[in-house]
Amino acid sequence: MSFFKPLDYWKWAEREDIVSNDSYPDPSDPRSAMRAAMAGDLMRSLGGGRPWILMEQTTNRVNWRDVNVAKAPGQMRLWSYQAIARGADGVMFFQWRQSRAGAEKHHSAMVPHGPVDASPSWKEVVRLGHELGRLDSVCGSQSRADVAVLLDWDSWWALELPSKPSNRVRQVDQIETYYQPLFDRNVTVDFARPDHDLSRYRLVLVPNLYLVSDEAAGGIVRFVESGGTLVMSFFSGIVDQAEHIRLGGYPKPFIDLLGVRVMDFHPLTIDQEVELEFNDGKRARGELWSEHIELAGAEAVARFSSSELAGRPAITRHAAGSGRAYYLGTRPDARTMERLLQMACADASVEPAAEMPQGVEAVRRQGRGRSFLFVLNHREIEVDVPLSVAGQNLVDGSDLRPGLMRLPPRAVAVIREGW
Amino acid sequence: MSFFKPLDYWKWAEREDIVSNDSYPDPSDPRSAMRAAMAGDLMRSLGGGRPWILMEQTTNRVNWRDVNVAKAPGQMRLWSYQAIARGADGVMFFQWRQSRAGAEKHHSAMVPHGPVDASPSWKEVVRLGHELGRLDSVCGSQSRADVAVLLDWDSWWALELPSKPSNRVRQVDQIETYYQPLFDRNVTVDFARPDHDLSRYRLVLVPNLYLVSDEAAGGIVRFVESGGTLVMSFFSGIVDQAEHIRLGGYPKPFIDLLGVRVMDFHPLTIDQEVELEFNDGKRARGELWSEHIELAGAEAVARFSSSELAGRPAITRHAAGSGRAYYLGTRPDARTMERLLQMACADASVEPAAEMPQGVEAVRRQGRGRSFLFVLNHREIEVDVPLSVAGQNLVDGSDLRPGLMRLPPRAVAVIREGW
Amino acid sequence: MSFFKPLDYWKWAEREDIVSNDSYPDPSDPRSAMRAAMAGDLMRSLGGGRPWILMEQTTNRVNWRDVNVAKAPGQMRLWSYQAIARGADGVMFFQWRQSRAGAEKHHSAMVPHGPVDASPSWKEVVRLGHELGRLDSVCGSQSRADVAVLLDWDSWWALELPSKPSNRVRQVDQIETYYQPLFDRNVTVDFARPDHDLSRYRLVLVPNLYLVSDEAAGGIVRFVESGGTLVMSFFSGIVDQAEHIRLGGYPKPFIDLLGVRVMDFHPLTIDQEVELEFNDGKRARGELWSEHIELAGAEAVARFSSSELAGRPAITRHAAGSGRAYYLGTRPDARTMERLLQMACADASVEPAAEMPQGVEAVRRQGRGRSFLFVLNHREIEVDVPLSVAGQNLVDGSDLRPGLMRLPPRAVAVIREGW
Repeated sequence: MSFFKPLDYWKWAEREDIVSNDSYPDPSDPRSAMRAAMAGDLMRSLGGGRPWILMEQTTNRVNWRDVNVAKAPGQMRLWSYQAIARGADGVMFFQWRQSRAGAEKHHSAMVPHGPVDASPSWKEVVRLGHELGRLDSVCGSQSRADVAVLLDWDSWWALELPSKPSNRVRQVDQIETYYQPLFDRNVTVDFARPDHDLSRYRLVLVPNLYLVSDEAAGGIVRFVESGGTLVMSFFSGIVDQAEHIRLGGYPKPFIDLLGVRVMDFHPLTIDQEVELEFNDGKRARGELWSEHIELAGAEAVARFSSSELAGRPAITRHAAGSGRAYYLGTRPDARTMERLLQMACADASVEPAAEMPQGVEAVRRQGRGRSFLFVLNHREIEVDVPLSVAGQNLVDGSDLRPGLMRLPPRAVAVIREGW
Repeated sequence: MSFFKPLDYWKWAEREDIVSNDSYPDPSDPRSAMRAAMAGDLMRSLGGGRPWILMEQTTNRVNWRDVNVAKAPGQMRLWSYQAIARGADGVMFFQWRQSRAGAEKHHSAMVPHGPVDASPSWKEVVRLGHELGRLDSVCGSQSRADVAVLLDWDSWWALELPSKPSNRVRQVDQIETYYQPLFDRNVTVDFARPDHDLSRYRLVLVPNLYLVSDEAAGGIVRFVESGGTLVMSFFSGIVDQAEHIRLGGYPKPFIDLLGVRVMDFHPLTIDQEVELEFNDGKRARGELWSEHIELAGAEAVARFSSSELAGRPAITRHAAGSGRAYYLGTRPDARTMERLLQMACADASVEPAAEMPQGVEAVRRQGRGRSFLFVLNHREIEVDVPLSVAGQNLVDGSDLRPGLMRLPPRAVAVIREGW
Repeated sequence: MSFFKPLDYWKWAEREDIVSNDSYPDPSDPRSAMRAAMAGDLMRSLGGGRPWILMEQTTNRVNWRDVNVAKAPGQMRLWSYQAIARGADGVMFFQWRQSRAGAEKHHSAMVPHGPVDASPSWKEVVRLGHELGRLDSVCGSQSRADVAVLLDWDSWWALELPSKPSNRVRQVDQIETYYQPLFDRNVTVDFARPDHDLSRYRLVLVPNLYLVSDEAAGGIVRFVESGGTLVMSFFSGIVDQAEHIRLGGYPKPFIDLLGVRVMDFHPLTIDQEVELEFNDGKRARGELWSEHIELAGAEAVARFSSSELAGRPAITRHAAGSGRAYYLGTRPDARTMERLLQMACADASVEPAAEMPQGVEAVRRQGRGRSFLFVLNHREIEVDVPLSVAGQNLVDGSDLRPGLMRLPPRAVAVIREGW
């Protein structure tokens, strides 16, 4: 069920043979494609990269929102391919035949109430079913990510208990501010538990890790010292596993790693913003949080330029061992998050799956010597997509040469590369 | 209690000798006059046209709203006459003497706390009492409507259960979008149960009839085939009396009557609108709902011109038997509802009680060879009202000739016509 | 706990030896300084002028708001002095050492989690502690107010029960509209129970007194007849102690005193305002309430100039005995409240503690032949403050001469005058 706070998916995944997801993104929310991708990446990560199953989605409308907006033509098919791109080997639906009675009779289905043959939803289901038969060779292949986002349910739970400096800091919101710019640039991301072996990654992102065990903190430090790049946000490393404050200054386990000391928290109300100024003079805005940072080895990448904190560091960078660690003492605006993550990707030599026009998602699955590039056009207009290698589009069997490929609105290509 | 969802008034009315209403419109709401008229029409319809009693209203302020706005001078008198115009033969008040203690001591009354003789409310009550003595000849007369709005409590209850395409479709809201333009044009309206004999009406309006019995559906079809005009809105005829879907395409019992098939529902969020374009090029807007309509004999009166549905029918018209049926696949803006209902009234040769300036209500009661035209000025300025026949104003005994009659702010005339 | 509705502080104060307050103003609310001053005045008044104790405040952030904004540098020290200025002889904190575990670990403390010596909060606490040792001579001195605001818990409770003309009339809101302009002008104010001996005051303010006993009503009348000045707002004197309406016209116990009769209440919705016009042609606005006033001896100071009440009195003034009584039939805008209270202060020969620039608070404590002027700069910039007499600033020991004294942002001077 995507990012579901009540259950620690990591603990369940240890004992489960098959990872599956129920995915019901809201077609009226422009962030839905990003969120469904993010959930797919989590499912893939839970199984250690193994293929998973999209167990439930719907062909069209659900029935439990206040207004249950219909999927646009092609949107169900597009989002089905997105799940496969993110590692699913199966795509299933709730429900087969739309029920005539009961609470879910207005929930859409593969077989609708109406005259079935004329139903656009039915036709799209049939088309998808035909097409999926051509993708057998994709089964079992996996995605390889150089970037990990740390997610820990204990920390999530502790963060969102009351009596904090701010109740507005929410785990999933924080993750999304990191995930969105990476999704937009087609940088593939895994999720990882903080105490996982991080050595396989080049870039580790910590949108928030309020609670951290000694073991996990040590692993994060070793990751950087061994040459990794870290980006960590405010209010991380504050408590231990018993939710006891880690005394000795905030954020105690990361002071040496980050080269900063946080003297005090200055959370922002919903109406407040702070201004930031980068070393190169560029200006930006921060929201949600600010804090009083004293440098202890780090350099300031950006400083606050408003509020009582004006002139103090807001975003820092510190060389530690053979790696480097960025620290964010506020939540920068979206454009600034994009810029910071591009800097971190450059530092860590992280590349996107492919360079694509805005609104076009690209993910690669690989295995048994084969490579499959999924290209998904989320826009309502057709786009010309650059291909760098030749291949075959498994969806329609067409051969593709390097150059521009035209993708209709909400269309999809699954390209077996380098045949 | 006006439109009160918990009780099926039709079932109570079958066993009651006297229909009465409690009416507490909010003086700060500009729709209050329309709503009180609508409630009066329902009361008259519940008794099959028999006079009813306004059992409870207040002289001035109630005490149970967050802010209990005072009635303007003359507003209590005006609204009392409105009840009579809509068929009441009695006007009563809660409460006689304003209580000194207890929960309702700040609810106004005929006899207020203060020095009684100086009280404007008291003076208005006394004036009204004197005047009503002059209206004895009105008692027992009835109003004749050529238009019926269908209202069924079973359908209301089923519509507003959860798990629908949209929870924003509300029975009374839908009725009001039909009632307002008819009220503004002084077209008198009855309410009718869908399984009533509709043959006495020329125009039947169905703002929503989600649930419909076979019998009621058959009656509606026969009404049109016998020469009647129908206007029906979206999401009607969807389920039977057990709330089971009527399979075979939406809206199954009305497909042949309306000449349309609805392939899918596209409800709109609170922030969404769709654009409409009429055949004559006029543009309009729709809210709340849109749907994918395929013509099956009907002509499109207006088409969607935005969203995924652009180019598809939005409002249709179909000749059936010797009648005709309009179908609305969205909720048009107020100006467009007014236009559509004028078209339907013209088709059905429905005339207003009288042509009046904006803000002036006109209703006619008739009986025993006598005809009484009620003219109510809801505006805060005086207006000149055209009279087409001579008569006597029962309120002040004055004789009236055809031509312009001047009505002060919130003033009233009850004209015995053609003496 | 400042203005705490559940407990009648007057009744508790009768039996308590020491009055103390817990003060947690929100640093993000610009009205916090005014509110903390108001709470301080209440504490002083509860003990009949005796010094009280600020038992709980925090050095920095609390942990129970949605967002717990940090105090600005110097704000804790400033607000501590404010409590002393308003009559406290002790300043204490919750909590001594910031807890490592449990629900209040993110509530700030005198000794913070972090490296203590570097903590700005800790440094400010230490500085304040050193300074307070120099203020021993202030202990036991008292403030003398010529103005009393009447506050009665029975009336507060009755006013805020439901079933009123308007639920939007709230006791503390009403008090604040009176207190703010007096705070801004440094006019010191006591709070008094309506049945207290009011003869020691020159000006008595009644922001609302819905419920009033015969004894209290008599005391208010005697106060004016003996030469006092009264300002009373709408919906006062309506019920007796059993919450029974005082029959005979509103506001029965004050009709002769005020020289007005209130014929009816016209409460305003949250979206409504009324326009006012003063006798000198100045225009103003009223909100929350309006009413139909008939003059019975009073003169109209301002009249309504919009709504059904246009032309009728809105604010009146009446000579009674050797005093005078203002009556407000609406809640005027802030600028107009300031103007009205200046008129009333002039009538009553009430003077501020000192004339100060905007944002600078001044209060005087006196006793045993000594006089201490507290000057508090609430602004974030430095200001030049005029001193009319020589003295010594106890905070830093400096000698001061008449003329301009420069006060840094959020700085404080406690001046022993006339040494």
